[in-house]
Amino acid sequence: MTGRPDVPDTPEQAAGSHPALGLDDVVHQRTRLGILAVLAEATEADFTYLRKVLGLTDGNLGRHLEILEDAGLITVSKGYHGRRPRTWATVTAEGRRALRRELASMQALMQRLDSVIGARGD
Amino acid sequence: MTGRPDVPDTPEQAAGSHPALGLDDVVHQRTRLGILAVLAEATEADFTYLRKVLGLTDGNLGRHLEILEDAGLITVSKGYHGRRPRTWATVTAEGRRALRRELASMQALMQRLDSVIGARGD
Repeated sequence: MTGRPDVPDTPEQAAGSHPALGLDDVVHQRTRLGILAVLAEATEADFTYLRKVLGLTDGNLGRHLEILEDAGLITVSKGYHGRRPRTWATVTAEGRRALRRELASMQALMQRLDSVIGARGD
Repeated sequence: MTGRPDVPDTPEQAAGSHPALGLDDVVHQRTRLGILAVLAEATEADFTYLRKVLGLTDGNLGRHLEILEDAGLITVSKGYHGRRPRTWATVTAEGRRALRRELASMQALMQRLDSVIGARGD
């Protein structure tokens, strides 16, 4: 620790200008990006499906769903399928926009790195 | 907490099959991705430059450089520029490969989402 107050590294910071600053950590974080990606394809998905397709534990999935719900990017609803309790997650319009921004930022970063790193040549 | 041991969500997990599982968190994390991207372009960069271009605090940059160095993706060296102490970071060959894998994984995720989310149309 330096003892200084921590300056949040947001895209708004005047000092930084790199495309990586355009990445929003709520969406960029790997597990949450996976959840949003699945929901963007499926519109809604239940807890068990998300857990399996993304290879997550109950606790891990629950924690990330909560962060996404708090940010208004998904909605979570609980109900029953027969007698079994089920939890569904659905991506919101804001969630779709956030995912689109994330992909556009990654695209910008890729274009910038294309010549130096040869990402497309794989 | 569920009381279960936490299963790490690695690409190796048989249950999961989504492209987001191909993302390596050491490289994917926003700040570290930014550092690697800058170093891939510049080959080496000093601490002050990295801090400014990525809009980071000393503590934040130092912590992420350590994680990247521990993973063998960068090397950090200390020296003097005139009388002033300076710290340089350089990307390793493994670091370049890791960045290339990250970009390929994001590319795969984008291609999969392209039709449903319209990322390229922005």
